[in-house]
Amino acid sequence: MKNEASAILLISCPDRQGIVCSVTDFLMRHNGNIINLEQHTDTEEQVFFMRVEWVLAGFSLSRDQIGEKFSLIADRFEMRYELHFSDYIPRVAIFVSKFPHCIYDLLARQNSGDLNAEIPLVISNHPDLEPVARMHGIDFRCVPVTKENKPEQEALQRELLNQYSIDVIVLARYMQVLSDEFCRSYPNRIINIHHSFLPAFVGAKPYHSAHQRGVKIVGATSHYVTGDLDEGPIIEQEVMRVSHRDSVESLVRKGRDLEKLVLARAVWVHLQNKVLVYKNRTVVFS
Amino acid sequence: MKNEASAILLISCPDRQGIVCSVTDFLMRHNGNIINLEQHTDTEEQVFFMRVEWVLAGFSLSRDQIGEKFSLIADRFEMRYELHFSDYIPRVAIFVSKFPHCIYDLLARQNSGDLNAEIPLVISNHPDLEPVARMHGIDFRCVPVTKENKPEQEALQRELLNQYSIDVIVLARYMQVLSDEFCRSYPNRIINIHHSFLPAFVGAKPYHSAHQRGVKIVGATSHYVTGDLDEGPIIEQEVMRVSHRDSVESLVRKGRDLEKLVLARAVWVHLQNKVLVYKNRTVVFS
Amino acid sequence: MKNEASAILLISCPDRQGIVCSVTDFLMRHNGNIINLEQHTDTEEQVFFMRVEWVLAGFSLSRDQIGEKFSLIADRFEMRYELHFSDYIPRVAIFVSKFPHCIYDLLARQNSGDLNAEIPLVISNHPDLEPVARMHGIDFRCVPVTKENKPEQEALQRELLNQYSIDVIVLARYMQVLSDEFCRSYPNRIINIHHSFLPAFVGAKPYHSAHQRGVKIVGATSHYVTGDLDEGPIIEQEVMRVSHRDSVESLVRKGRDLEKLVLARAVWVHLQNKVLVYKNRTVVFS
Amino acid sequence: MKNEASAILLISCPDRQGIVCSVTDFLMRHNGNIINLEQHTDTEEQVFFMRVEWVLAGFSLSRDQIGEKFSLIADRFEMRYELHFSDYIPRVAIFVSKFPHCIYDLLARQNSGDLNAEIPLVISNHPDLEPVARMHGIDFRCVPVTKENKPEQEALQRELLNQYSIDVIVLARYMQVLSDEFCRSYPNRIINIHHSFLPAFVGAKPYHSAHQRGVKIVGATSHYVTGDLDEGPIIEQEVMRVSHRDSVESLVRKGRDLEKLVLARAVWVHLQNKVLVYKNRTVVFS
Repeated sequence: MKNEASAILLISCPDRQGIVCSVTDFLMRHNGNIINLEQHTDTEEQVFFMRVEWVLAGFSLSRDQIGEKFSLIADRFEMRYELHFSDYIPRVAIFVSKFPHCIYDLLARQNSGDLNAEIPLVISNHPDLEPVARMHGIDFRCVPVTKENKPEQEALQRELLNQYSIDVIVLARYMQVLSDEFCRSYPNRIINIHHSFLPAFVGAKPYHSAHQRGVKIVGATSHYVTGDLDEGPIIEQEVMRVSHRDSVESLVRKGRDLEKLVLARAVWVHLQNKVLVYKNRTVVFS
Repeated sequence: MKNEASAILLISCPDRQGIVCSVTDFLMRHNGNIINLEQHTDTEEQVFFMRVEWVLAGFSLSRDQIGEKFSLIADRFEMRYELHFSDYIPRVAIFVSKFPHCIYDLLARQNSGDLNAEIPLVISNHPDLEPVARMHGIDFRCVPVTKENKPEQEALQRELLNQYSIDVIVLARYMQVLSDEFCRSYPNRIINIHHSFLPAFVGAKPYHSAHQRGVKIVGATSHYVTGDLDEGPIIEQEVMRVSHRDSVESLVRKGRDLEKLVLARAVWVHLQNKVLVYKNRTVVFS
Repeated sequence: MKNEASAILLISCPDRQGIVCSVTDFLMRHNGNIINLEQHTDTEEQVFFMRVEWVLAGFSLSRDQIGEKFSLIADRFEMRYELHFSDYIPRVAIFVSKFPHCIYDLLARQNSGDLNAEIPLVISNHPDLEPVARMHGIDFRCVPVTKENKPEQEALQRELLNQYSIDVIVLARYMQVLSDEFCRSYPNRIINIHHSFLPAFVGAKPYHSAHQRGVKIVGATSHYVTGDLDEGPIIEQEVMRVSHRDSVESLVRKGRDLEKLVLARAVWVHLQNKVLVYKNRTVVFS
Repeated sequence: MKNEASAILLISCPDRQGIVCSVTDFLMRHNGNIINLEQHTDTEEQVFFMRVEWVLAGFSLSRDQIGEKFSLIADRFEMRYELHFSDYIPRVAIFVSKFPHCIYDLLARQNSGDLNAEIPLVISNHPDLEPVARMHGIDFRCVPVTKENKPEQEALQRELLNQYSIDVIVLARYMQVLSDEFCRSYPNRIINIHHSFLPAFVGAKPYHSAHQRGVKIVGATSHYVTGDLDEGPIIEQEVMRVSHRDSVESLVRKGRDLEKLVLARAVWVHLQNKVLVYKNRTVVFS
């Protein structure tokens, strides 16, 4: 889709006049060719959000200078901002337990070039999916977690994440709850898939609960992980119709397709630097 | 869709061998031409469900005799069953408050001949929608309900329902909670529309809650009303994608289309005698 | 949703640097408080599109001056643009034949205040739906069209449209083909609903064709009317799952819900000045 | 989902009285415990369809005897029928070209035990995807096809299919058109995925055509392959919303998810013996 390297600014700040004008003026003065600009104002919260992407070729500032120069505007408008470059390939670690469908799907996408990512590391609390990682040439580390050893094992996980220079953690049906501290170390960088249409059916066995309640539609939800289980900012959701004919087993089977689709979409928009988080909600630019 | 009168049996009973065979044999022996047969077995609960419809013309039993003769089979299999005739036109009362979209939609469907129903009565706790009822030539009764006068007013409502020989009550965004006793008097005959994807966002202001939680999909749910608010058997649900761009007002606006669609579908399948309730769930035959 | 009058600019022009910057600078210099800005660049066609909305209160140009002053920027960038004011209430004429579901739905929306429109006139080639118009207090004119009298009758229709100062024509299942000349007189101002997922099943009886082909999903399409039947720019589409159980009659019945929903959405985005047409396609801002 | 072996009868015949009764009576007389029964009557064509599944354990006829005994009923009602056993594992060959997403998805499902199938053979007209087959331990045969060598190469393909005792052929984005003769040799046993919502956008480059037409929804279609390109009986379809923001590349990217989902669903229902074909349409039992 992109042949040339581009820069991306993700901005949020209190809403006031002149923000778009100032940012686009900054880019124009340095000969920036904007290829995407999307803004959103939350009128209730009075917060302004913006994603702007421009071609680096011909831009009169070097990559290092952009942040430095832009900080003047950022300060003026009390902006929080992120600066990304489209040619940086993020490094992803996948955490799994025993269900293989999500990891299979992510690895196939990575292999096909659909994900703008390296996936050098798979971590699991079970040995079962080692062959799946190996067949894709990816390092697999089994880190079994119990209530007792969780602090040490999370320390080991963090060491591995550092060692592999991981940017993003994807929980591909990883069945362990991460500690609050672990979550806080990777803010908006841990992506989970929950197998229900949140906030319906939080916790374990959501398909059983859905069946019990007799819903006519089931869903899956991908969200950033915070210390509050299943309560983090939602990135993406999808649903499908079911009926009285669907047993719990049938919901589980059909749900797998939702889970892998929703997780893959969430990972994709994250890797495209299209997501901004505020107040436990996300702005997902299109 | 149907030119000829037909009879419909809705059956549920403990699952065991020979049920379909016995029922179809009964119909064949009396020269019944089956035009629809659908069965479902809940293998977890070991319960058997069936809907069978056959042409009355040529059937060797009169309408009165069917139940009498069928009761032998019903007893043998410990069946609960309902017998309906397609040429009976059910009588529906609509309960409303101030939101007009659902009642407008139902009345337009009735006027166009889309609903197999008479709608002789609209009851409201506010006078606002009287003109909507009147323009369709329907009697409108304003029965204001407060915490104090609820028993008397529900008695009045029941008197009206009797007087108009009402079979089915449709709560078309009626903002009063019905008493447990009232609900029990019309089991599986009161249909409500709730403006969320239940069980997410029960109670008041679900669009506000959905916005607050930052969901990417919102829904509406139609269910039979029981004494447990928003907990009755779900008949139909539908959803739509939303985004960070949707304010609460926007969710409310878009949600209206879901509400009227879901309620109309639920009313339709009910009026077609396609719904069986068991254990707070529904079997909705296709 | 809006308490204050706002101005809306819809812009399209050849893509080049500095457009966003120039437009937002223009607004800022005149003290314009932007409440919505969305832009899109078609990179294949190298065309730039933008919709920007700002509050009129406090803006230093009067309504009359805006176009005059903005034309300098428009000329520089070879822009085509439209200027709208949110407090102008467009006047809509509905054309119908015999199917009532779409007109019922539109009139209910208008009555409920959901459409930002006046609907002073209904035109039909049949007398059947006169009562529907009358019950909403709307003038109804029957203008029967045959192959022979089409030129005169279209002249009469145009006279009526002028007399009622109509801005937008909505074909709510109007079963006559408008002449090329008529279509050209109201470019991007005639909105039709076609009862299929275009470009599948153009022409008459699409539900029959869909049933014949055995599709598992059917749809409806709303588009601007051009001289090429069913070939105009698509504004909105929606679909629903069907199955082998659906007869043609069942498709027709279910399809009505799609038709009225899709038409209403298309009319709504048009009336909100969110649609730009280029090369037989639409940009529909969110 | 099934712990015990079951037998499945798929039946179609001219509609008349007594079919359900006769079939269920046959099963009951031989002590058959029905676990699924679904019937459908096409009232326009006057054709009756039925799928019935019963537990083999305790059934008083051996597998060999079932067909023999059932043929008496089949003759009486002029039935076409298929008899399947749930513990038979069908053998599938996948045909691919260069796009890997569908084969990756199918192989992951097979590996995870989601597909009731063996996949011993992949055939391609290009060598590119050999590693994907090999990593799953599946034989890969490159059979390049040109206009000139098609007859010989199809002969080779058929030899391979025989040699591997293949029951079902899945075209997982296989970009060669099969000859009429080849198609006729495997009636209702070749499953293709077409990357559009058929019958819209038949032929090559459907995403380009969809973009050109400006549709707001795109789809994918899985169908049995017949001699008429893209005209075979549709098994499954799915769609997704798109917008003016989607370039052709974006449609292609998003469409891959539809393609693999729709193909997998179609293969699954086929392998579950849930599909009956008549008059270029399918009955897909639930």
